[in-house]
Amino acid sequence: MKRILLVAMLTAGVCFAQQPGEFKPAETNVWGAEYPRVDPAGRAQLRIKAPDALKVKLNFWSGPKVDMEKQADGSWTVTTAPLVPGLHYYVFNIDGADVSDPGSRAYFGGNRYASAIEIPEPGSTYYSIQDVPQGQVREVWYESKVTGSWRHALVYLPPDYEANTKTRYPVLYLQHGGGEDETGWIRQGRANFILDNLIAAKRAKPMIVVMAYGYAQRAGQPLPNVTPGVSAEAARAREQMAKTFEDDVTQALIPFVDRTYRTLSDREHRAMAGLSMGGFQTFQITLNHLDLFSHIGGFSGAGGLLEDRKPDLKTDYNGVFADPAAFAKKVRLLYLGVGTAEPERLLTRIRGLHSALKEGGIEHVYWESPGTDHEWQTWRRNLQDFAGRLFRPRSSN
Amino acid sequence: MKRILLVAMLTAGVCFAQQPGEFKPAETNVWGAEYPRVDPAGRAQLRIKAPDALKVKLNFWSGPKVDMEKQADGSWTVTTAPLVPGLHYYVFNIDGADVSDPGSRAYFGGNRYASAIEIPEPGSTYYSIQDVPQGQVREVWYESKVTGSWRHALVYLPPDYEANTKTRYPVLYLQHGGGEDETGWIRQGRANFILDNLIAAKRAKPMIVVMAYGYAQRAGQPLPNVTPGVSAEAARAREQMAKTFEDDVTQALIPFVDRTYRTLSDREHRAMAGLSMGGFQTFQITLNHLDLFSHIGGFSGAGGLLEDRKPDLKTDYNGVFADPAAFAKKVRLLYLGVGTAEPERLLTRIRGLHSALKEGGIEHVYWESPGTDHEWQTWRRNLQDFAGRLFRPRSSN
Repeated sequence: MKRILLVAMLTAGVCFAQQPGEFKPAETNVWGAEYPRVDPAGRAQLRIKAPDALKVKLNFWSGPKVDMEKQADGSWTVTTAPLVPGLHYYVFNIDGADVSDPGSRAYFGGNRYASAIEIPEPGSTYYSIQDVPQGQVREVWYESKVTGSWRHALVYLPPDYEANTKTRYPVLYLQHGGGEDETGWIRQGRANFILDNLIAAKRAKPMIVVMAYGYAQRAGQPLPNVTPGVSAEAARAREQMAKTFEDDVTQALIPFVDRTYRTLSDREHRAMAGLSMGGFQTFQITLNHLDLFSHIGGFSGAGGLLEDRKPDLKTDYNGVFADPAAFAKKVRLLYLGVGTAEPERLLTRIRGLHSALKEGGIEHVYWESPGTDHEWQTWRRNLQDFAGRLFRPRSSN
Repeated sequence: MKRILLVAMLTAGVCFAQQPGEFKPAETNVWGAEYPRVDPAGRAQLRIKAPDALKVKLNFWSGPKVDMEKQADGSWTVTTAPLVPGLHYYVFNIDGADVSDPGSRAYFGGNRYASAIEIPEPGSTYYSIQDVPQGQVREVWYESKVTGSWRHALVYLPPDYEANTKTRYPVLYLQHGGGEDETGWIRQGRANFILDNLIAAKRAKPMIVVMAYGYAQRAGQPLPNVTPGVSAEAARAREQMAKTFEDDVTQALIPFVDRTYRTLSDREHRAMAGLSMGGFQTFQITLNHLDLFSHIGGFSGAGGLLEDRKPDLKTDYNGVFADPAAFAKKVRLLYLGVGTAEPERLLTRIRGLHSALKEGGIEHVYWESPGTDHEWQTWRRNLQDFAGRLFRPRSSN
């Protein structure tokens, strides 16, 4: 279904009843750029100047390659069918080269600075800037003996952090997906606005959010070859990578955060969540370190359990799920999220994990985001839902 | 001269005595990208995959367009002659389309996310991360009634800001150049590392540095059409734009900073500097508001005085330079910087301004950066020199 939504309508006649004036520059554009443009129905118009090109295609990350049409002025244009709300990564393919759109801001995705277009969700303000007290996102560099390097991370501090100089805060470690980086949750996900708005509405506890770079090369070892995807090989490569990252998080990042910020540094006040690859990493890291974490979230990704087999709760993750009562005592929140329009294989696996956990008596929250794909609108919704459940007295869910 | 440095050497024979192994991925690359590469002599090797392209050129911002050569695997490559140290913006031109390099990090320049390659300056560590106490860069959004919008800015806070909860700090407002944005001084300029290293060596006072977006659209008015350059029209457009930005800085930004951070909010402890367009803006804003500023820096750009005429110190800027003694009493530091390899016209103008100020008896610091062009290496050096002179007892210069 989602694939069909992206099919371009190249003939003028298809855009019946469409006034050109309804198209406005996308909010993801660089300042002053007229293209890309979006209309109220979610149609996108894209344009790139390439006067001598033989062929130009529009290539959405999770969609087909669509031919663009050459105009008299040397530019190439296309108008898409309505896109689902959210942030859609894309590049142009110009005579075989995948390149980003000069009109779009640059978003790190697919291991490169890609372009993206934001299709507004009518009525949704939870991920937009509002006139409420705002937290600040800080850039930090921490030294990691695990990787033998300085590593860059972003840290969200809640609005009252500086006024309440005696208050200590719980911490959520929040990870990006495959091919993305530590900037994803702010630039693409708008996690800071989501938190600001939740905290202002008293729907979430004020908390610190730490966003680290999820790729890690162990000091003195070659770069692991990790690609996004749900194959078993990719999952194994991610596990190996996650092992280095796990050591980085537990041995370098957490100590750095706890000595740099006024944190509540016990396990009861430390959470971790991630999307896609970040969800795999979250499961691996938290379930190996329940001495450090009490809240766990996987958004469209939830650990090595997501292979094409039924999870074995007796043995997976060293049997941490074997005793539901013991697990429930340790883990205050286990959360699984997924979009209903995600690729079938991933959806099936996450539903399978949910069922297995339910059968096994493992208390957890499972939420499907209606109509959203393997993209940021799913994860914004997941974060809003998840963050509101953090660091609260245990409920029955 | 600088133009010649960029001419590509396309024939293998030219790269005599060059071992391929000497080329290493540039530090400006995205993680894991093998290209662009740099060798110890400052030569750059670039590559882009464009199998069906007819023609691919390498286009340095301040250099010629150089043809690239198609390889059997569908990629196009080029090796440049040695480049001067510093950060060089570029794009590829693929069949007429100017596009950025997927192997490079994205740097906002030329009103778009462009690519850039860092050519290391042998022995220079002042703009690199070091094992010294580090400040933190914060992202803030401030509401501006002048523009009727939320505006994004970056704020550097010095290493001891959080430990010394009673200390107040002086503030430097630091502006980017034409076509750049508020991220330029951190991403391209590495201002945070420059400040960290200066402060650690006790060569600069701990200070707050505020980096705002220098383009501003007055609420309810159309977008001004401002392009980089040194033409009189461009200068006038910049002045008009700077008027809106001037109101934004004085009416929205400064009040926001002074109520958000522990600043020393008197004029004696407030400085402003900028590069190129940011220098023009700095002169206009500070000289119109000497009640607010006492330290002024123009790096490769210094106000409307830089027209093709001799400055008239009696009347320019409402005659603020007419009385050298009164000016010296007000302005604790007036600083002009420029690179010796900058375009002749700009260099001539800045040298002319320096001469006129000298003749007029206006106390100021003038410094030429040897061998650097209208690019970030000049401005990194300017910042290091300028920052070390800020907020100190007046010297004789």
